[in-house]
Amino acid sequence: MKQYLKSASCDAQLEQAMHYALFNGGKRIRPMLVYAAAQACGLSKIKVGFAAAALEMIHSYSLVHDDLPAMDDDDLRRGKPTCHIAFNEATAILVGDALQALAFDVLSQPQLDISGSAQLQMINALARAAGGMGMCGGQALDIAATGQSLDLLGLEQVHQHKTGDLIRASVRVGALAAQASQQQLDALDQYASCIGLSFQIQDDILDVEGDTEVIGKPQGADQALNKSTYPALMGLDAAKSKALDLHNQALEALSGFADEAEPLRQLSEYIIARDR
Amino acid sequence: MKQYLKSASCDAQLEQAMHYALFNGGKRIRPMLVYAAAQACGLSKIKVGFAAAALEMIHSYSLVHDDLPAMDDDDLRRGKPTCHIAFNEATAILVGDALQALAFDVLSQPQLDISGSAQLQMINALARAAGGMGMCGGQALDIAATGQSLDLLGLEQVHQHKTGDLIRASVRVGALAAQASQQQLDALDQYASCIGLSFQIQDDILDVEGDTEVIGKPQGADQALNKSTYPALMGLDAAKSKALDLHNQALEALSGFADEAEPLRQLSEYIIARDR
Repeated sequence: MKQYLKSASCDAQLEQAMHYALFNGGKRIRPMLVYAAAQACGLSKIKVGFAAAALEMIHSYSLVHDDLPAMDDDDLRRGKPTCHIAFNEATAILVGDALQALAFDVLSQPQLDISGSAQLQMINALARAAGGMGMCGGQALDIAATGQSLDLLGLEQVHQHKTGDLIRASVRVGALAAQASQQQLDALDQYASCIGLSFQIQDDILDVEGDTEVIGKPQGADQALNKSTYPALMGLDAAKSKALDLHNQALEALSGFADEAEPLRQLSEYIIARDR
Repeated sequence: MKQYLKSASCDAQLEQAMHYALFNGGKRIRPMLVYAAAQACGLSKIKVGFAAAALEMIHSYSLVHDDLPAMDDDDLRRGKPTCHIAFNEATAILVGDALQALAFDVLSQPQLDISGSAQLQMINALARAAGGMGMCGGQALDIAATGQSLDLLGLEQVHQHKTGDLIRASVRVGALAAQASQQQLDALDQYASCIGLSFQIQDDILDVEGDTEVIGKPQGADQALNKSTYPALMGLDAAKSKALDLHNQALEALSGFADEAEPLRQLSEYIIARDR
């Protein structure tokens, strides 16, 4: 990503702010999923680095825009000032816009080892996951639900789009790069749907149980805002058991893969075991 | 574009706001350039409709974000409430984000008549023109220059990125779809650079001479803000003569094309003769 940022803007401050947004201590789960999915389908990690970078750029831009005053109005992310606090609001808007464009720039560059038609499918998968039917739509649903209490179905719909679609796209993009068969794509999508949901449930659990220092945001923030969460709707123990169920379903979806899917299995485990 | 908007978001209000932003009485110059460039290189207009739509989506998203309070803070565009006034700020941010993603979604869909490698080049041209080295970078330079007086060179650099790069991309995308030769691409890029600049000069002239009703924004707004403009830096008559020179250079760049480039010639003429 540092390489791609080297000539990312004709405006020095914008480039600096793009760097700030991309290198903010994120967990890099989406790039890891791209690598792991490609590996599960027999492609060397090194060949999908560009796609891994693109996924993280989309994720990072969405955090910068979600933190804006007109959206979630957050001053801190992972314990550091958010982009619009460290720079200013106009710059933060442009950072998000430019990072989204950079993701598609990187994905559409000529690649020696990936077929052009696979590349087009990867771009399309990412564009759909990031747009109004995916991540942006989920954020809109989330904002519309502010101050209302959602039921489990409504909550799942928000998360499916807001975070789930990009997680599924990460896995799909990695698999497409590896020329995965339709059967492999279907199995991996099943896996990705499970971990997308368990990821969100674990986030909600950490809001109840986590350590403010470790999770990088005030513990109990969701509860204080009276936000609909899995622990609030189904109880903490049931939420934990649902996360574990989803982990097992994710492993089940990978039953047709041998050792090469081990990184995907470990990521599913990490997602429900993480403390931040 | 209406077709593409039909399933553009899982959130009804976001979809409605995307529609509002795309159908706001724009001049559609960029889609016309896509069509005209494809035609100049021998490809039927109908085959580049998807690319024309993508260009307009990027342009429309940029207007929505530029109008935001943290950016230019405009309440009116073409005489109608801007997106964040008609809806709200959060929605306007998401409209821009989702329209950008939709542009790349549309461009990356399987096309029957365009080769995959041409499609990848089109996507890359648009992503670069829209990003930090292009439109977003130009907007950042423009914001950085607020309250400062630019010289002609500085002014040209801002406009080259803020509006010029997307105009050049419109022409390039249409030509790439038509499998234009390198010689054709170079000539068309020369043409596009000229009209990108004459477009901006005419905008500045209209701010001095235009009719508020017709241009859809208060006449004299740039002067009131003490903004650097071509008429302010070189005088109104010199600005008009520079626009005409650029038109003639644009025609000269097209000298290798016959009748099939007539729409491109007319667009250059329109750009310096328009009253809005």
